[in-house]
Amino acid sequence: MNSRDIPDIVVGRLPIYLRALSRMALEGQQITSSKELGERLGISSAQIRKDLSHFGEFGKQGTGYQIHYLMEQLQKILRVEAEWPVALVGMGDLGRALGHYNGFANRGFRIVVIFDSDPSKIGETIPGTELRVMDAATMIEEIRARDLKVAMLAVPADKAQEVANKLVEAGILGILNYAPINLTIPKEVRVQYIDPVIHLQRMTFYLDGEQ
Amino acid sequence: MNSRDIPDIVVGRLPIYLRALSRMALEGQQITSSKELGERLGISSAQIRKDLSHFGEFGKQGTGYQIHYLMEQLQKILRVEAEWPVALVGMGDLGRALGHYNGFANRGFRIVVIFDSDPSKIGETIPGTELRVMDAATMIEEIRARDLKVAMLAVPADKAQEVANKLVEAGILGILNYAPINLTIPKEVRVQYIDPVIHLQRMTFYLDGEQ
Repeated sequence: MNSRDIPDIVVGRLPIYLRALSRMALEGQQITSSKELGERLGISSAQIRKDLSHFGEFGKQGTGYQIHYLMEQLQKILRVEAEWPVALVGMGDLGRALGHYNGFANRGFRIVVIFDSDPSKIGETIPGTELRVMDAATMIEEIRARDLKVAMLAVPADKAQEVANKLVEAGILGILNYAPINLTIPKEVRVQYIDPVIHLQRMTFYLDGEQ
Repeated sequence: MNSRDIPDIVVGRLPIYLRALSRMALEGQQITSSKELGERLGISSAQIRKDLSHFGEFGKQGTGYQIHYLMEQLQKILRVEAEWPVALVGMGDLGRALGHYNGFANRGFRIVVIFDSDPSKIGETIPGTELRVMDAATMIEEIRARDLKVAMLAVPADKAQEVANKLVEAGILGILNYAPINLTIPKEVRVQYIDPVIHLQRMTFYLDGEQ
C-alpha cells in the first residue's frame, strides 16, 4: 500500500484514534467498538470504520476491536513502534516546556538534542534528563551525525525560516513548527504548525454576542 | 450572513491568511494578491479567492488586496478586532510558557487570570505581567465575575475532563485544550486541541526508510 493513496485528512485522524485507544487501555479496557470510539471522539462510527478500512481489517462484525492489537497496528502504520529521536531548536519558555514534557514517552518520540544560539543557555542541562543545550552553530553537523529526521522548531518568528533552512540542509524531513509564521520549505519536507492563536481565532469566529 | 453556512475548513484557513498578511504588513508591504499569498502558504490562489468570497469582495481584479484593509476585515470576521480576555488553567511548564507568551498581543487575546490547584503555585506572579496564580477552587466564581468566554486548558490528562466541566459550568464557550485527551463537552462549547504528538505522528506516517 502506498501512503500517497491515503487522503491526508484520514492520516490526520489516525493519531487521534491511537490516543483514544491508549486512554482506554490505560483505563483497563480490552475491547472497543467503532461506536464507542466514535462517541468518545465526536466522530461517526462509519467514518472510523471507513478510515481504518484503508489499512486492512482490524475487527470483527459484532465483536469489536481488540484494543491492544489495534493500537499496535496503528503504531506500525504511523511508524511509531520505535522511538524517533528528535532535535529541538530554541530554549525559550516553550522550548523549556517541550524539553520537560513527559508526553512524548511511549508515543514514538524522544528529544535527543537541544540547540540554542544564546551563549547564556548553551551548556544548560534539562533537569530530570541527560539533555544539555548545544550551540546552534553546530546544529547541521550534530543533526547529520545522529541522522535525525524529525525536529521541533521553537524559535522566534523572525528566526524560524533561517533555522528551518538549516534543518533541511541537515537532512530533517519533518518539522513541527511552533513559530507563528509559514515556512517556505522543499516539497519533500513535511511541516506541521502549532500556533495557539490560530486555534483560538477559529473558535472566536463562532462566538456570538459581546466580547 | 450566518456563520453556520461557512464550512469550518474555510474558517480554519482565515487565521492563517490573517497571520500571513500581518507578516507582510510587518515587512512594510501594502498590497498583495491571492497569487502571492498562495505562494507563501502553499495554497492555490483560486482557493484563497473562493474562501474570501464567502464574506464579500475584498480586492479588485488586477490591483490585488490592500493588506491593511483585508486584515481589518478578517479581524472583524474572526471577531478579534478587540481582545478577548482569556482564563488559563494549569501552571506547569506549559502554562508558564503560555503565561509568558507575547504572541497573543495584537492577535485578539490576553490572559487575564491563571488558576492552579497546587498550593505552592497559588499566589505566584508571572514576571513581566500583572498576573498572579489564583486558587483553582475559586475558578467558577472568578470566571463568572469576569464573564470570560475563552479558556486555555494546560493541566495533566487525568484532570482535564474535570476542569473542562467546571469551565463549562462557569460559562466558557471556547476551550483550547493542551491536555492529550479528548474532552466530552456540550455541543454549544467549542474545543480546539493542541497535542504535539498528534502532529508528529501525522508526519512520521510519511517518512520512509529506517528510523
